[in-house]
Amino acid sequence: MAVDLNDLPGFLRRSPYHRLLGLEMIKAGTGEVAVRMPFREDLLAGDDAAGRYVHGGAIASLIDCAGDFAVIAAVGYDVPTIDLRVDYLRPATGELTATARARRAGRSVAVADVDVTDGEGRLIAIGRGVFKT
Amino acid sequence: MAVDLNDLPGFLRRSPYHRLLGLEMIKAGTGEVAVRMPFREDLLAGDDAAGRYVHGGAIASLIDCAGDFAVIAAVGYDVPTIDLRVDYLRPATGELTATARARRAGRSVAVADVDVTDGEGRLIAIGRGVFKT
Amino acid sequence: MAVDLNDLPGFLRRSPYHRLLGLEMIKAGTGEVAVRMPFREDLLAGDDAAGRYVHGGAIASLIDCAGDFAVIAAVGYDVPTIDLRVDYLRPATGELTATARARRAGRSVAVADVDVTDGEGRLIAIGRGVFKT
Amino acid sequence: MAVDLNDLPGFLRRSPYHRLLGLEMIKAGTGEVAVRMPFREDLLAGDDAAGRYVHGGAIASLIDCAGDFAVIAAVGYDVPTIDLRVDYLRPATGELTATARARRAGRSVAVADVDVTDGEGRLIAIGRGVFKT
Repeated sequence: MAVDLNDLPGFLRRSPYHRLLGLEMIKAGTGEVAVRMPFREDLLAGDDAAGRYVHGGAIASLIDCAGDFAVIAAVGYDVPTIDLRVDYLRPATGELTATARARRAGRSVAVADVDVTDGEGRLIAIGRGVFKT
Repeated sequence: MAVDLNDLPGFLRRSPYHRLLGLEMIKAGTGEVAVRMPFREDLLAGDDAAGRYVHGGAIASLIDCAGDFAVIAAVGYDVPTIDLRVDYLRPATGELTATARARRAGRSVAVADVDVTDGEGRLIAIGRGVFKT
Repeated sequence: MAVDLNDLPGFLRRSPYHRLLGLEMIKAGTGEVAVRMPFREDLLAGDDAAGRYVHGGAIASLIDCAGDFAVIAAVGYDVPTIDLRVDYLRPATGELTATARARRAGRSVAVADVDVTDGEGRLIAIGRGVFKT
Repeated sequence: MAVDLNDLPGFLRRSPYHRLLGLEMIKAGTGEVAVRMPFREDLLAGDDAAGRYVHGGAIASLIDCAGDFAVIAAVGYDVPTIDLRVDYLRPATGELTATARARRAGRSVAVADVDVTDGEGRLIAIGRGVFKT
């Protein structure tokens, strides 16, 4: 494939937006990746005690990135997102890891599933994306 | 209602994550808001000519924020996102405006629709969110 | 286009599943259609007073059909569904009409929005589908 | 819980719409169920060779039913669907089995994941639903 699995972490960091959020790939296999997002003040939803959880938009960004790279790790080239869905299950108050895997990579589209967990392994959000192959 | 429409632009800016992305509310009515996201280098998907479009995660964040505030502008208090969906229609190469309106605000959940357009009025993405009321 | 707008109502009825549910096209324009589903005992969710509303699966079927035909009415040929989403807003206790329009028909995919209303014009459900063009 | 796992197959059959489609529960555990849909002429998308696959609306109905019952099997009482999403991966030309499990059952909403496979174990569609608890 055109993109080597070893190159994926570096490829992810080439995106200015991924760097803005501090995203890093911590694992890559065929059709499966894990991406980490730090717990940072500027990713929080609110500015008081009640708002000290990670903003849903940051979590959606993490899911889009991880799903995208799971498909890249399956098909070997960059793929644009067609659509994205996120279900928020619990507020997140720490570093997050998104584990993504391609469920199907067909000739025209691919679908990836993404689980987002916190440091204690609690499921924070689940996502699903469709990508153009 | 507990949140005044005139206070919504300031309320939006209290979120560190909204400030990180540069989101600003430019219009607020009952159940309807418009939120703007600047075109900035650190919101781009890639670091070369082919990647000079706004990252899908930033667009998802804009949609989450706008949908959320449309519901806040309908019910008068802050509401957490239950789930979020985004359809990407065209690459975005400029400032974006998300126009959101609450389609239904029931006793337990509310649903908001969001259209994201660019400076020329082209539809860039459409989103839908469910929020807990 | 290969499919004439006047032929769409007949084309819809050629599907055995559409006939099973009693779906009928009552309006067709470029990229826009309206499809009606009768209120029938065998489309109900339950068998007692509490369950006398239309099953969510029947409403999802109506939305899939209407969205699909809105895209057919835009591009002129049959298109398979890539993905479908439905938000249920109110229980339905009568005949339903799905009004669908293509929001975007690109080279590889099209997106359609569908509003489902009852006889009093109340919004019962909203749907969105992505179709392969 | 108010609904006994042994009663779930009978409870499913009480829905007129489930009987119309021929749905049957073939397995039930805590937060997990399997539901089967027969391959029948009146569930097909088209009336010619090209259309001899199961209509997407029937698959969406199967997913709604299975997801709903996975949550019922987790919380012990009937739950209305808030929203539903379906990704179609392959055309289906035989009997289908939907395997559903509750990913999270919180105080206000529950989320269930559904995999639909055919007789050869191929993944035909995946779905996700949010239900009001």
